[in-house]
Amino acid sequence: MCVRCVRDPPGLAPDRGCEGYHLPLMFDRKINTQTDSQLPPFPTHTQVEGAEVTVYRIRDPVLGDAPGTFDEGVLDAPIATPEVIMQSDCVIIGGPGRQGRMSAEVSYFFDSLTEFQTNGCLLKGKVGSAFTSVGGVGRGYGGHEAILQSFHGFFLQHGMIPVGVPPSSAMEDAHMANPFGVCMAGKPSMDKAGSRLRSLSESEVKLAYSQGEWASIITKQLHDDGD
Amino acid sequence: MCVRCVRDPPGLAPDRGCEGYHLPLMFDRKINTQTDSQLPPFPTHTQVEGAEVTVYRIRDPVLGDAPGTFDEGVLDAPIATPEVIMQSDCVIIGGPGRQGRMSAEVSYFFDSLTEFQTNGCLLKGKVGSAFTSVGGVGRGYGGHEAILQSFHGFFLQHGMIPVGVPPSSAMEDAHMANPFGVCMAGKPSMDKAGSRLRSLSESEVKLAYSQGEWASIITKQLHDDGD
Amino acid sequence: MCVRCVRDPPGLAPDRGCEGYHLPLMFDRKINTQTDSQLPPFPTHTQVEGAEVTVYRIRDPVLGDAPGTFDEGVLDAPIATPEVIMQSDCVIIGGPGRQGRMSAEVSYFFDSLTEFQTNGCLLKGKVGSAFTSVGGVGRGYGGHEAILQSFHGFFLQHGMIPVGVPPSSAMEDAHMANPFGVCMAGKPSMDKAGSRLRSLSESEVKLAYSQGEWASIITKQLHDDGD
Amino acid sequence: MCVRCVRDPPGLAPDRGCEGYHLPLMFDRKINTQTDSQLPPFPTHTQVEGAEVTVYRIRDPVLGDAPGTFDEGVLDAPIATPEVIMQSDCVIIGGPGRQGRMSAEVSYFFDSLTEFQTNGCLLKGKVGSAFTSVGGVGRGYGGHEAILQSFHGFFLQHGMIPVGVPPSSAMEDAHMANPFGVCMAGKPSMDKAGSRLRSLSESEVKLAYSQGEWASIITKQLHDDGD
Repeated sequence: MCVRCVRDPPGLAPDRGCEGYHLPLMFDRKINTQTDSQLPPFPTHTQVEGAEVTVYRIRDPVLGDAPGTFDEGVLDAPIATPEVIMQSDCVIIGGPGRQGRMSAEVSYFFDSLTEFQTNGCLLKGKVGSAFTSVGGVGRGYGGHEAILQSFHGFFLQHGMIPVGVPPSSAMEDAHMANPFGVCMAGKPSMDKAGSRLRSLSESEVKLAYSQGEWASIITKQLHDDGD
Repeated sequence: MCVRCVRDPPGLAPDRGCEGYHLPLMFDRKINTQTDSQLPPFPTHTQVEGAEVTVYRIRDPVLGDAPGTFDEGVLDAPIATPEVIMQSDCVIIGGPGRQGRMSAEVSYFFDSLTEFQTNGCLLKGKVGSAFTSVGGVGRGYGGHEAILQSFHGFFLQHGMIPVGVPPSSAMEDAHMANPFGVCMAGKPSMDKAGSRLRSLSESEVKLAYSQGEWASIITKQLHDDGD
Repeated sequence: MCVRCVRDPPGLAPDRGCEGYHLPLMFDRKINTQTDSQLPPFPTHTQVEGAEVTVYRIRDPVLGDAPGTFDEGVLDAPIATPEVIMQSDCVIIGGPGRQGRMSAEVSYFFDSLTEFQTNGCLLKGKVGSAFTSVGGVGRGYGGHEAILQSFHGFFLQHGMIPVGVPPSSAMEDAHMANPFGVCMAGKPSMDKAGSRLRSLSESEVKLAYSQGEWASIITKQLHDDGD
Repeated sequence: MCVRCVRDPPGLAPDRGCEGYHLPLMFDRKINTQTDSQLPPFPTHTQVEGAEVTVYRIRDPVLGDAPGTFDEGVLDAPIATPEVIMQSDCVIIGGPGRQGRMSAEVSYFFDSLTEFQTNGCLLKGKVGSAFTSVGGVGRGYGGHEAILQSFHGFFLQHGMIPVGVPPSSAMEDAHMANPFGVCMAGKPSMDKAGSRLRSLSESEVKLAYSQGEWASIITKQLHDDGD
């Protein structure tokens, strides 16, 4: 069983919002800890036996890997390609929200997967799960559920199985808790260097783990038939 | 494996719209053929081995089973209860749309399932799939995808797994083909008795079968572990 | 200019959630202060000249005005009817959310307005605005924006003009701030008598006033041509 | 009163889908008829007195104006800029749908307008209206209403007034009629040169005119105070 976390981009420079950096990587074994040193502590082993997790980044199709616009280490993450998606049993994908829309970078990436739908439905049966963030300057307010539902729409267009965040008491305390996927809420703070930083709240981290574990369980059940 | 099709109401009187009568019962073994004599011909056996399918109706909480407002045989269908949902591995549920909202009758039924969410998350892991119909007098135009997504929202609130309509070439010809669930489109016609009749187009029937089969396959994979 | 605030129901008994009681009545002149004594202080005059505001309640079509299920004074509010809507230039309508759906009570009320759409489009050009609340036991988590958008869908079905919450700095501090309509967030607290109480936060009150004022300004501009 | 129709891109080459070419330009006085020679005949004067209509195109931020990928004349249309939006009283904007998402090109354009929201709310009170198209290879099926609602979400984020398609009997015959905006439905046909061509059906043209007229009426009422 192969789970891929795809982030758009996994760490962005201050001027474009840093929150990608802290987005949920629900569970991990191979994560580049140098790259993601600001992430909340992750278990070294996922609790779902057999899950192999890799974190990829979506490359910006307009700006590319323009120097100086990424935090240190971010560009070390491998770039997500259609082949990566094809070889995964489960894809957990997300990126910062833009006023009720997924970011154009993610949208372009989805466009690159179109042929899988029209050419044999190659993603059918894979598990998909989504995450996002909203709020703060230039992001608008709310819109996160429409964003997450548009990820689900993509999954369903390809015959994939959308998996959300299962109900839990942690939802009581996460401001933007919803059943569609984890959303990082709140305003960014500034670090010493003037970068905008955002981090998941404790409740959001719990929900992120819960979402990742749940997606893994469903994936295992659907794809690990005795092998 | 136990699949339940729940319709709101399975046959309504002319003044409230007949289209429930022809809504997709994707596959069946035990269907009350007297009740559903106007349905398109169904296979006597579902193609997914082990599936037991039962068709239920949602009781109108305001009008109840008022005589003279239902087509003959409709009231023979058993009434859906929270227990029926609890005992199913998969629930395929639908009803006529109302200007972008699921009908209030279905909404009330969902309210009756609330305790399952707050009391141990008893529906977690079940498969859910949805269908609807729109168009014609009093229904407004469009809104079917928002309706189907609100069914998915209910499923996800309970930790259920939403299953849609997998991609297929039949989508090219069904006017309201979409990945969320089958939607019966078009204007109703009048029968000799002045009742408004609607029926699924050939493409819609194909998509309905496809949705039912796909929901059964996923359910079998998730719930039939060796037994 | 005539603005109507319609609440579903304006005060509900503990077992069904009290939050209706504190929902935004954005501005008012004629409000029954006895009925709404728990509301945050309202201006005695709206700031938009010429606005006449009346608060109505939507009657529960299943339980009706069952004694003992409403807080004191709630049933004093006049009942919303199709005629009330017809005679208004602007309708600000809301009610508690149910796991991503507007409450069935509101949905039934909207069904009662269907003939206006199919019979001359009598609501065309009126201004509509919406509010809701989510969270807590039995409500599920999130789903408020889908609810508010389904109100907008209703407005647009009738050719009405949806008005949302204009951007403001108060959005930074309201957890469920969004452009579609005010949503009361958070868990209810218990009063001495064991009733669940919820109230709008200070930021939510600001947004509610802002939404009401904005709806009034647009309504005035659209409907007050020199008279 | 100044109405702008912004299309993403107004005419695309065969390999990327031609349907932009035929999208609704609801009414016009200044349209470049050479560019839009395949459009259905437009009135030379809009029926709403005082409306000045200009058609712009959104420039592809990745491919730009790559030669050979546009139909003849398309690049003659002026390019939409933030200033164009600022100077309009009403913006009617659309583009081909991508599996439930607005195209990334439009999404990028909206990103370029972000500062208007955070810097004085400069678009507040303007009228916004949207259109799209779905279906066919690479577009997925359905999703048009979610797309149109995400346009409305953008409008509302900026304090704009969304205007939809008013109810009319033409909705009975347009397959994807809905209250949010005109959607061109159906499969493209091939012309002699192998280009995929799509055109609005007669009902869709009626709805497009109706949407444009309605947006103009509301704009006139909101913005033409005696001048």
